[in-house]
Formats: sequence, structure tokens, C-alpha cells
Amino acid sequence: MNKIKRVLIAGGTHGNELNGIYAVRKYERCPELIHRPSFETLTVLGNPRAIEAGVRYIDKDLNRCFDIPEGKATDLDYEVQRAREIKSQFGQAGQMPVDFAIDQHGTDSNAGLMLILDSLDCFTLKLAAYLSCKQPELKVYSSAASGRSQDSLRSIARYGVGIEVGPVAHGTLHAELFQKTEVLVCAILDYLEQYNSNTVSLEETSLTVYQHANAVDYPKGKNGEIQAMIHPQLQFKDYEALNPGDPMFLTFDGDAIAYQGSTTVYPIFINEAAYYEKGIAMYLTQKQQFQVS
Amino acid sequence: MNKIKRVLIAGGTHGNELNGIYAVRKYERCPELIHRPSFETLTVLGNPRAIEAGVRYIDKDLNRCFDIPEGKATDLDYEVQRAREIKSQFGQAGQMPVDFAIDQHGTDSNAGLMLILDSLDCFTLKLAAYLSCKQPELKVYSSAASGRSQDSLRSIARYGVGIEVGPVAHGTLHAELFQKTEVLVCAILDYLEQYNSNTVSLEETSLTVYQHANAVDYPKGKNGEIQAMIHPQLQFKDYEALNPGDPMFLTFDGDAIAYQGSTTVYPIFINEAAYYEKGIAMYLTQKQQFQVS
Repeated sequence: MNKIKRVLIAGGTHGNELNGIYAVRKYERCPELIHRPSFETLTVLGNPRAIEAGVRYIDKDLNRCFDIPEGKATDLDYEVQRAREIKSQFGQAGQMPVDFAIDQHGTDSNAGLMLILDSLDCFTLKLAAYLSCKQPELKVYSSAASGRSQDSLRSIARYGVGIEVGPVAHGTLHAELFQKTEVLVCAILDYLEQYNSNTVSLEETSLTVYQHANAVDYPKGKNGEIQAMIHPQLQFKDYEALNPGDPMFLTFDGDAIAYQGSTTVYPIFINEAAYYEKGIAMYLTQKQQFQVS
Repeated sequence: MNKIKRVLIAGGTHGNELNGIYAVRKYERCPELIHRPSFETLTVLGNPRAIEAGVRYIDKDLNRCFDIPEGKATDLDYEVQRAREIKSQFGQAGQMPVDFAIDQHGTDSNAGLMLILDSLDCFTLKLAAYLSCKQPELKVYSSAASGRSQDSLRSIARYGVGIEVGPVAHGTLHAELFQKTEVLVCAILDYLEQYNSNTVSLEETSLTVYQHANAVDYPKGKNGEIQAMIHPQLQFKDYEALNPGDPMFLTFDGDAIAYQGSTTVYPIFINEAAYYEKGIAMYLTQKQQFQVS
């Protein structure tokens, strides 16, 4: 068993997601909150220039920049440079390689308290099960099938999780979700401490995981203009069943557009502002149970 | 009685408030929706460059630029120039002076469906009372005491109202609020039509108006950094009574900060993202009844 020697807590990977930024500032002010005896805990503000400007990013979404090879036209983009800087500090070949990364995000969608896993290995599933027992409202989303295993900040660590909370408008703080995130971060650190001392105690648990299936774009016209909005019956209904024939979008003239798939899916990140430019109205997921012990 | 001859419907005065932008585009595609026999209805997208960029503004908040005199350092700011352009088109000394302006906005705060009045003259109060009868959920906010009577887009018309809807995250569409806004805009046009033909029929009504009292900033440290968030008990509680001693903010360490005022107030625009940079955590209002007939 490889012990966890160093943990990284990140916030502000997107410069307008304030909860994570203020959480990192709090931990830097009160390091005792994240200190655990068996490993070192570090913090980082992902995108200082975007934080200063109060925007998601300056040139490019930092959380998609960690696998961009050198020698491309994007080399001069601030976030590409910042990703390399962070990787050279905390990456596996860096100065202070981290074994576990926690990256804190916020979303306009009704994410509640969401844990994002990039792989479904035993270590990660046990952690997720432990956290679900501690905070039963926690939702677990696996991005393993999204093709996004290497481009995110958390991917530079041996293990990593993302935390998404919502709905919280970009550029705002949300006290209740701030406190819940803090409880979750502390529970992750507690788990890693127990893992290191081989004292994890976990009863057999059925863990619900929302597994990434695919992204859905807004209906668009020939010129690329959006032709319909999220249907009112779907707005804020993240994690709820969307059945074939259920209304999904509503045109500006008031006509419903139904979900055309053949199976029930569970949409998440519904109507996230930052995903409009990516052509994503929501992610569809499959709901799956894992027995973890 | 001066008849209404020309009405202006604006959207996109802030470039990331999508509902108003798509509403204007719809009206431009279907002008019959806003056509009324006794007056001309025009549309305008306030801030085209900000709309293109998906941001609130390029250099400066356009909706604070309509009273900036020439010859200032801000003359080269895009929004200052744009305000002058709009004023030269639709202002009282412009090419096509408008008698009534409707400016459509969106907010992260729990505004619901809000009508903003800049003055409490009889014409405006009767309109508000009529609209409240048509859409009982409508909340009426008077900014008359805010000192903002001349700086907004709507101020260029003889009469003007703002429409705020929320919560809708900036950069997103919200179908239910899109439809409610459309009903409200049509009701305003219907009222103006009745006004012109002297056929307004309004029973005596008690109209509730939330009158601007003052703005409250976030608690801040010496370096200007925010030290507390909106208290969870106040988040999304726009228009609800805030009594002396009620929790207002919550520090990052979890300590509540109480409202120190001596009278009950009714906060609105609680936790609006765009107001962080203005140093506004919320507006406090006084709730007042007007008998309108």
C-alpha cells in the first residue's frame, strides 16, 4: 500500500467560483483545519489572474489545459502557462508531487453537494462510500467515460476528486454550501488519515454513482443560434430520471421538445452558464449501484 | 393627456442577461406580438459588443452611463459612447423620441417577477396596479429614493419601467421567467393601448411597493476583502421582513452578524453577483401600501 504523503486543496481554478477561493484563503489563514499527522496538506489558488479579474478564465478554461503538449499555438495562453506551472510544482514529476488533489468548484446547476470521480478504482470508491455515509446528501458523479481524465487540475495528482456545489451563481458566495464543502473536505482528509494508518472502518455500503454517458447541446439553428431553453419541468432537476418522451427543451414560441433517447437517463449540470460556450446544455448520466465494503 | 406615441422594448443592456436578449430577438422576428394600433413599438439590444462577448459590459455598466456629461475621461468607454448613441436615437431630443421604455433584466437574486419604477407618479402607479391585478405574483420596487433617476437606459423615455426576473444565473436562459416576462410586456403594451383610448378600467386596488431605502455592503477588512457571506437564513429571502437582530451575514468561521437597524426592512437584490464590485450585498427597502384607483 502506497501511503498518502501529500495532499493538495485547490480553489479558484475558475476565477469566478468564489466559494472555493474563499475556502482556500480560510485554510491558508487557519492551516490547523487541514493539518493531519500522517501527511502534508498544501493549498493552491488555481487561476490568480482570473480571480483578480472576477472571471472564469483569461484566455482559456484552465481546467482543460493540463494535457496540452508544448509547441502549440496556445503556448502563450495564460492558462496553458499556469497549468504547466502548477504541474511543475505539484505534478508527479514536479517539485512537490501530490498523492491526492481536491479541487473545489461551483455551478449554477442544482448540483447540491457533488463529488466528481475520474476513475472507479477501489481506493476512490471506498472513499466515496465513506463520504456518502458521513454526508448522505452527497451525490457521486463519475466522469470516467467523459474522456476528461488528464486535462483537469486534479488529474496531476495520483488520486484526485472534484467537488461541485450548486446552485451558486458565478461571482457569488453561498454560505450553506461553503459550510457543507468544508465538512466534506475535512471528511476527505480524515479518511486519508485513516487510510494511512490502516484504520478505515467501512460497513458494506451500496453507493449510487451517476456515470457520465454523453453531453447534449441546445437545439440550434443554421447560424448556431440557440433555438430553445431548458424546459421548466427539467430546470433544477439534476439527478432526476428523464424518460423517453419527457420534455427537455422549450422553444421561444412555447413548444416543448421531448427527450428522444430510448432509455431513462439522469441529467446533471443542467443549464450551467459556463457550458453554453462549450455547446453543452446538460450531461446525461446512467445511475449505477456499487457494493463497496 | 399626452398620448403614448412610441414605445421602446430593450434587452441586453447587460450583455450576459440572456432572457431579455432572446426576448428582443423574438419580438424582432415576430413584430405582430408587440404591435398595438395606437402607438409604434420599437426594440433595441442595448449593448451589442457585451452580448457578443457574453459579459455584462465591456468598459463600464451601460445602465449607469446615461447621465455622464461629455468631456470626461470616460468619453472613450464603449458604453459611454453607446449610451449617447441610444439617447440620440430614442431620447427626448433624439430622432425617434420614445414616450415609454421597457428594459428587461435578470438577476441571481430571488427577484421573482419584479417591476422597477423610478417615480411614483399617478400614471406609473396606475400601470403598476393594473399589472399587479393581471399577474398577482408581480413585485413592485420603487427606486425613486436611490438617486438613479437619470443614469439608466429607461430614463431616456418620458416614462419607463425596468423588469427584473430571478433567480436566473447570468449567461443562462430561464424558460419559466422568459414566459412570465413576455406576459408582463404584453400586459404593459395592452395597458398603454387602453390608456391611449381612455378605456383603462381599474378597480380601487391596494398596491404594495418596496421603496428603496439604502444599500448595504458586505462586511470588509482593512484591505477591502469580504469577511462574511449572506447568512443562509437570508439567502433567497428577497421581499421578506428582516427585523432588528435577525442574522444578516455569516463569517467564514461560522459567526452570525445581525442586522443592526432599528426598524423592520425588506431586503431585495440579495447576493446579486454583479453588485459585488459595486459594494452592494443587498438593497434595503420599506414596504408601503398605495391606494390606486
